Amino acid sequence: MQKGILFILSGFAGSGKGTIVKELLKRYDNYALSVSATTRAPRPGERDGREYFFKTKEEFEAMISADELLEHAQYVGNYYGTPKKYVEEVLNSGKDVILEIEQQGGFQIKEKCPDALLVFVMPPSVKEIYNRLKKRGTEDEETIMKRMKQGSKEAEVIAGYDYLIINDDLDKCVENIHATVQCAKFATGRNADLINDVITGFGDFLKGNV
Amino acid sequence: MQKGILFILSGFAGSGKGTIVKELLKRYDNYALSVSATTRAPRPGERDGREYFFKTKEEFEAMISADELLEHAQYVGNYYGTPKKYVEEVLNSGKDVILEIEQQGGFQIKEKCPDALLVFVMPPSVKEIYNRLKKRGTEDEETIMKRMKQGSKEAEVIAGYDYLIINDDLDKCVENIHATVQCAKFATGRNADLINDVITGFGDFLKGNV
Repeated sequence: MQKGILFILSGFAGSGKGTIVKELLKRYDNYALSVSATTRAPRPGERDGREYFFKTKEEFEAMISADELLEHAQYVGNYYGTPKKYVEEVLNSGKDVILEIEQQGGFQIKEKCPDALLVFVMPPSVKEIYNRLKKRGTEDEETIMKRMKQGSKEAEVIAGYDYLIINDDLDKCVENIHATVQCAKFATGRNADLINDVITGFGDFLKGNV
Repeated sequence: MQKGILFILSGFAGSGKGTIVKELLKRYDNYALSVSATTRAPRPGERDGREYFFKTKEEFEAMISADELLEHAQYVGNYYGTPKKYVEEVLNSGKDVILEIEQQGGFQIKEKCPDALLVFVMPPSVKEIYNRLKKRGTEDEETIMKRMKQGSKEAEVIAGYDYLIINDDLDKCVENIHATVQCAKFATGRNADLINDVITGFGDFLKGNV
């Protein structure tokens, strides 16, 4: 069985990452969600172990020291990180693991796991990013502008991602992301065993062993 | 408008390349076929300018000298090559160009056009390749075994392709190939203009110009 794909989804605040992840998990049965650890405070409705493992700064730093994280980063003053063991187990079972993380974490993982697939999602325009943050209504203007400035920095390294997908129509965006992850499985780099089987198969055939 | 994708489809003799290309052209409207030039004799039913531009050896060598070919190669004693001008025009119009060529040609193009997408298609087993060649009934046993030996060499460089797709169920294979070509359009490397627009868009927003 082919190993699952470690699929990293990043995007500007307000790009609809959370909704996209929910839809992928709802529509297709090949995905499993990696739950990140974070020191940021839970938002209303968020539950520990579902959206995030909510940790104190001290707990998080202990995980770093124990090398229990695949990546970690600070973002708007908080730690975010990916517990390692769970991800590896799920990939080995053949499922694709979705990591919804920000860029620093994505690049850290790409360095450690070159097979990870990095997808950046964004609204159809910069103005729309601002509108979505306002509409979400969970943050004051100052925080929103802080996120826009952060977005401006993030935009400069989008090229480090493998794919850039626009979230204009949600359905279409989810389908495009799913297709991109599934097609990545045809990459020759992920099929070394199959290629070796073919080479061996020809050898056996020509020797008359088939 | 995004430039079309130069999509190279190769595969062992008997892998169903021809049928796949016909289905892609029939089902989707984004493809245009690149017609190759060749010195091999037409098979029954093949028409000049449709399956191939059939050329004499002298005519073909004149095209090489005039640099009118994107690639050319010899295969089972004949020349095959891709006329350059047509491909470039169609790509610039936004259509994806299908090139059904063998490996040497595919690698030549990849070197000249790193954006070209190389897909290798194959039957589910080596034995099945032989069976399909026998079933086709257009070649004697000696030629078939020559093709199997050629296939054995081709197998060794499949890793140089971007994608490897199995042709077991034709419908599924055609869908998978189409999805792979379309998803390639989301690659950040093909979206430098869009990324620059986003960077500029943030700059304008933060300056209050939006």
